[in-house]
This record gives sequence, C-alpha cells and structure tokens, in this order.
Amino acid sequence: LQKQQRSEETHARILEVASECFATRGYEATGVAEICEAAGISKGAFYHHFAAKHDVFLELMRRWLDTLDTLFEEMRSQTGSVPDALISMAQVIRHLSQTDRKQLLIFLEFWNQAARDPQIAQAALAPMRRYQDYFAGMIDAGIAEGSFQPVDSRTIAQIIVALGLGLIVQSLVHPDAADWEAVSREAIVRTLAGLTTLDASPELAQVSVDK
Amino acid sequence: LQKQQRSEETHARILEVASECFATRGYEATGVAEICEAAGISKGAFYHHFAAKHDVFLELMRRWLDTLDTLFEEMRSQTGSVPDALISMAQVIRHLSQTDRKQLLIFLEFWNQAARDPQIAQAALAPMRRYQDYFAGMIDAGIAEGSFQPVDSRTIAQIIVALGLGLIVQSLVHPDAADWEAVSREAIVRTLAGLTTLDASPELAQVSVDK
Repeated sequence: LQKQQRSEETHARILEVASECFATRGYEATGVAEICEAAGISKGAFYHHFAAKHDVFLELMRRWLDTLDTLFEEMRSQTGSVPDALISMAQVIRHLSQTDRKQLLIFLEFWNQAARDPQIAQAALAPMRRYQDYFAGMIDAGIAEGSFQPVDSRTIAQIIVALGLGLIVQSLVHPDAADWEAVSREAIVRTLAGLTTLDASPELAQVSVDK
Repeated sequence: LQKQQRSEETHARILEVASECFATRGYEATGVAEICEAAGISKGAFYHHFAAKHDVFLELMRRWLDTLDTLFEEMRSQTGSVPDALISMAQVIRHLSQTDRKQLLIFLEFWNQAARDPQIAQAALAPMRRYQDYFAGMIDAGIAEGSFQPVDSRTIAQIIVALGLGLIVQSLVHPDAADWEAVSREAIVRTLAGLTTLDASPELAQVSVDK
C-alpha cells in the first residue's frame, strides 16, 4: 500500500514538474532528462509511469479539459433555459484567468504542437470535436425547448468554439485590454440573438428589442 | 551593386530556411547553427543580417501580417458599405487555407512564444492592438455611415479578432470539419446582425427578418 502511495506521488510529481517545464521553457525545449532531474527521479522511474514525454503532455491536457468539463457542467446545472446556460458560460473566461497561467501556456503549446505532430493532432481533435458536439447538443436542446428557431446547430457550435479559443488567446496575450468576461458575454449574446424566439431569455430579448 | 544583391539573397534565404525549420521542428527546437547549416552560410553571415534568432522570427511575422493587411485593404476597397466589407473579410480564411501551411504554423508558434517571452509578447501585442483598432475604426465608420446603431466599437472589434483567431486555429487543426469560410461568414453576420439599422446590407437585413 505504501508502495502504491509512493508511486502515485511520483506520478503527480512528474506531472507537476513537467507542467512547470513546458510552461516556462516550452514543450520542444524540455527533455525527459530535465523532467527527471527537476523531479529528483531516475529515468527508469519516469518510464515506469509514462511511455514518452508526449504522454505526460497529453495527460496534462486531459486533466485540464476535465476541469473545464466540470466548470461547464456546474454552470449548466445552475441555469434554466439553454440560452441562459450558454451566456453564463462566459464566466469560464474569468475562471481561466484566475487559474494557473501555466495551464493556459500549456493549452497554447498544445495547439501549436497539434499543428505539427500527427499524434498530438489526433489528441487535439478529440476535445475539439467533443466541444463542437457539446455545444451543438445544447443548441439542439434550445431548439427543442423552444428557445431557438431551427438552425444549423453544428455551425453555431463551431462559432462558439472559435469564440472560446480566440478569447482565451487574446486574454492570455493581452490580459488588461478588456474585461474579457464581459466581452465573452457580449460575443455569446450577439451570436445567439438572431437565433432566439420571442419567449427566450430576457437578456436576449433585450438585444432583439435594441434592434 | 552585385554585393548588395548577394546580401539581399542571403537575407531572403535565411528567412526561407528559418521559416521551414520553425514550422517543421518548432521555434524553441531550432538553433541559429541549424539555420546556418540549412542555408549554407556562416554564423558571421547570419549575424550580419539578424541580431538573434528572435529577430528572424519577428521579421517572418511582420511579413505575414503585411500580407494580411494587403488582403484586408483589397477587400475593403472592393465593397461598398462597412457591413458588406466586414462580411467579405470571411474570405480571408479561405485565402489563409490556400497559403503556405508553414506560415500558419509559425503564426501559432508566435502566440505560443508570446505567452512565454516578454519581448515576443510585446511584438504580438502590436498587431493585436492594430487589428483591434482597425476593426473598431471600421465599426465607427459603419456608425458614421448609418449602417450600425451607436455601439461600443472596441468590444465588437475584440469579438471580431477573437473569431478570427479561433477560426484560424480550428481550421488549422481540423481543416475538413467544415467549410470554414462559410462558418466565418455566418459568425460575422451573426455578430453584426444586432448592430444594423434597417437600411444596412441586404444580407444582414435578411438575418434580422429571419428573427
């Protein structure tokens, strides 16, 4: 049992140290040898836990995406209509800016490597598809509940994913340029405004009335 | 004169080779020694043209941004109203997918490095501010010409920049998932629809009528 605990600690330590190295120096510039040295472990111990540096990177991303999923589910459960749930998701930007900047650096590094490394591209496609499916499902649910007019939910989902990615990148590089949560909220409201039926959320109805 | 021509050729050759190396192996993993070897030049020749690897990277980005500016200006000059000009800019996504994928890889690498290296962050801020200003100026011009209602042009500009960034990243990682030009067009139309006055472009009026 003690041995298992030690093994779990080593696993966690590798992830922590690798996260630091990837964020500070970049994925390409970080070698397994450096991770081992910083973690104070042998290469044998490293390869007991991970087949390659690549797998550490993917596990870090997976954990980050799990955190995001939890955030989304929490917001979804706290709101009523689908439009309100989507608008409340603008808060994710604030949560992200409060979380470890390291995580966000690794997120950027992930897209960067995905465009270059076919294995990482496969791993990047999975969450992108998942988010496209997730938001398409929400739009479909909004149509079903009568909040939205019939619409191509896949395209709207791709627009929402694009907004999310673009707002994260902008807020990372230019954190003080705006209240990024407010910009995100406005972006979602504007995207959804044209979709709503008259009995949708008051905030969206307001945008329609402003027209 | 011959000497000057040779010097210009070397300069161009460094940029070409470095672009290839950064795209294939990544910015961090590429050293000046490798660029020199691939370009068939001495380190002395390299440092005659560039103070550091960093400066090659920045010049590549600057050239890429100049190409984008030219595209935007062409589209602007070929359209009438500001809303129509903004919608036509969705074509940029198609132009980008037809240009060298290497350029786009370097673009991703740029944001990645910007989040890590303060000097590159400064260099990344400049074009981001420029595009925010550019689109805010267009929205203001749209208000002035009577196409848009009075609105916070800065926020709309940040939403447009976010869409651009997010659509480029998605289309790079997932090129076959959608007609990305059509998605971009839809994204811009949806963002602008709530802003337009009744006498704005027919396409936007259509979206308003669809409501």
